[in-house]
Amino acid sequence: MNIITISREFGSGGRELGKRIADLLEYDYYDREIITAIAKQKGLDEGYVEKALENRTWQTMPLTYRQSFAGMNRMQSTQMNLLVAQKQVIEGIAKAGRDCVIVGRNADALLADRKPFSIFVCAGMDAKIRRCMERAGNGEGLSRREIENNIRSIDRSRAKTREMISGGKWGDCGTYHLTINTTDWNIRELAPAVAEFASRWFGR
Amino acid sequence: MNIITISREFGSGGRELGKRIADLLEYDYYDREIITAIAKQKGLDEGYVEKALENRTWQTMPLTYRQSFAGMNRMQSTQMNLLVAQKQVIEGIAKAGRDCVIVGRNADALLADRKPFSIFVCAGMDAKIRRCMERAGNGEGLSRREIENNIRSIDRSRAKTREMISGGKWGDCGTYHLTINTTDWNIRELAPAVAEFASRWFGR
Repeated sequence: MNIITISREFGSGGRELGKRIADLLEYDYYDREIITAIAKQKGLDEGYVEKALENRTWQTMPLTYRQSFAGMNRMQSTQMNLLVAQKQVIEGIAKAGRDCVIVGRNADALLADRKPFSIFVCAGMDAKIRRCMERAGNGEGLSRREIENNIRSIDRSRAKTREMISGGKWGDCGTYHLTINTTDWNIRELAPAVAEFASRWFGR
Repeated sequence: MNIITISREFGSGGRELGKRIADLLEYDYYDREIITAIAKQKGLDEGYVEKALENRTWQTMPLTYRQSFAGMNRMQSTQMNLLVAQKQVIEGIAKAGRDCVIVGRNADALLADRKPFSIFVCAGMDAKIRRCMERAGNGEGLSRREIENNIRSIDRSRAKTREMISGGKWGDCGTYHLTINTTDWNIRELAPAVAEFASRWFGR
């Protein structure tokens, strides 16, 4: 069973890259599907699950609190429950035993014992802002500065979650097998290059 | 003209990777050849040139001194002269117009206007120590700790030189097109994967 995990800076095109790689290699693809599965399992609204997992209030709690669930308010406790559910869903995907691409959610750390091929996708800030503006139809009326602040805030959040889950440093090249800078690439042209590289990895 | 540059952590196998990529793509290969050219141009011993460029005393000087050559002692002044010569040699290679792989010496920054495909090669510390011990026939009698200290010291030096030459951050994924972690690879198997990836880049 081959698992490819993709961690990415917000706006780097990592999600599109993951989808295209899955299509090229005929692998299953998981991204939003994980949120859907958690929502179903917990009987919660998908939008709520997504927001709760993105929210950073729990990240600032001392680690001892996080581990024991003691001293948490209701929202923090819900968030921890959702993180646990997310872990179970991702482990369930792996247990199914089908080749797959999983985008985000620290799947590389959660599935480390299954030796996924782990990719980190980054890009220059200008390229990320451009991508965000294109994707949202000119950035939902946000200014360039506001988009940049959003990107930085989301990436800080991802880095903190990563640190809590694995101790490994988010975005550090030693944490992943391959780190790709998409700044000067068209994702459509990049995807076959990465798919070939991953095939070499699994075939070695 | 296609230029591939390889920056690497000491012991990561970046040099072997560069050589193998050059062989596979039938590109020229430059590494030690640059030292040889500088030595020839300056009428100096190769070993001396290499040591002088590795020496870090000049890195600690204030930048204004470095730029003006004022206030330098003789050794520091020699080192700055050699850095300038190195830049000229690398620009000369690019001017020759032949496809090539250049290992180290911040060639990606020096040749930025020629848009090289820039690779950074890293590896976990254990893998780097193992590689150093194999290469030197059990580490030239050095202890594991001494080898690790050497690796850290050489990489700190590379990071500082990088910072002085380009301002860009050595080892930061945003600085390179592709960052490869060689920890779980055999370089012989990795090389074709990287050569294919680079060919996709130049063909896009």
